[in-house]
Amino acid sequence: MNDKLTNYKNILEKKAFMNISTIMKDGSSQTTPVWFSIDKDYFFVNTAVGRTKDRNMKRTPKVSFSIQDPENPYNYLGVIGKIVDRTLNGADEHIDQLAKKYLNVDSYPYRTDTETRVIYKIKPLSVFGVSGN
Amino acid sequence: MNDKLTNYKNILEKKAFMNISTIMKDGSSQTTPVWFSIDKDYFFVNTAVGRTKDRNMKRTPKVSFSIQDPENPYNYLGVIGKIVDRTLNGADEHIDQLAKKYLNVDSYPYRTDTETRVIYKIKPLSVFGVSGN
Repeated sequence: MNDKLTNYKNILEKKAFMNISTIMKDGSSQTTPVWFSIDKDYFFVNTAVGRTKDRNMKRTPKVSFSIQDPENPYNYLGVIGKIVDRTLNGADEHIDQLAKKYLNVDSYPYRTDTETRVIYKIKPLSVFGVSGN
Repeated sequence: MNDKLTNYKNILEKKAFMNISTIMKDGSSQTTPVWFSIDKDYFFVNTAVGRTKDRNMKRTPKVSFSIQDPENPYNYLGVIGKIVDRTLNGADEHIDQLAKKYLNVDSYPYRTDTETRVIYKIKPLSVFGVSGN
């Protein structure tokens, strides 16, 4: 983990939510809370193909997000990042891993027959915040 | 309060944080947690003159935010909105009101001699989310 992110390890190891902002077609943004995972220096989020977030991140690979410490909302990290990969490969397994992390269940319970899951890989470009360390 | 927002009254009455996204000069976004107040159908946030958020909202009056229920993060509202006013008038009093709401103190404790507070008034253009009602 790079030095910047290491400062926020205590937050990143918790079941914290990411509030992610994606860019709409007209240049405005949309912000929603999502589950995430982190591996080495990349963040991963999982959505369903065709949703607003998916369409936005496909069109404009610029995202930003904040993650607050669930135990102390004054500690948080903010990240400006770019999408470096979008893939359907492993996306079903990934949403199950997220369900394990957040809900402690083995299988994502909100799956529908009509949705296809997709993973986005986010590379942090800048990191800021209050670590509380 | 308009019908859309009334659905989320239970969240809006709590000490919930707003994660607000503003548009950077290059068209990307920045997302940070902030305090807010709400009056009729408008949201109000308070920052210091010259900060990234202030510069962004002055240049580009497009914001979006999400507000999660602090007691159940799966309930949230998302808003895409526009800045309809920016004023220094009453901004010192407003940050004290926010300090009362969030910290239960009469005076904002993080004030510095060098900063000038500023209020942004946000008109919601679209509202979505999960109310839990």
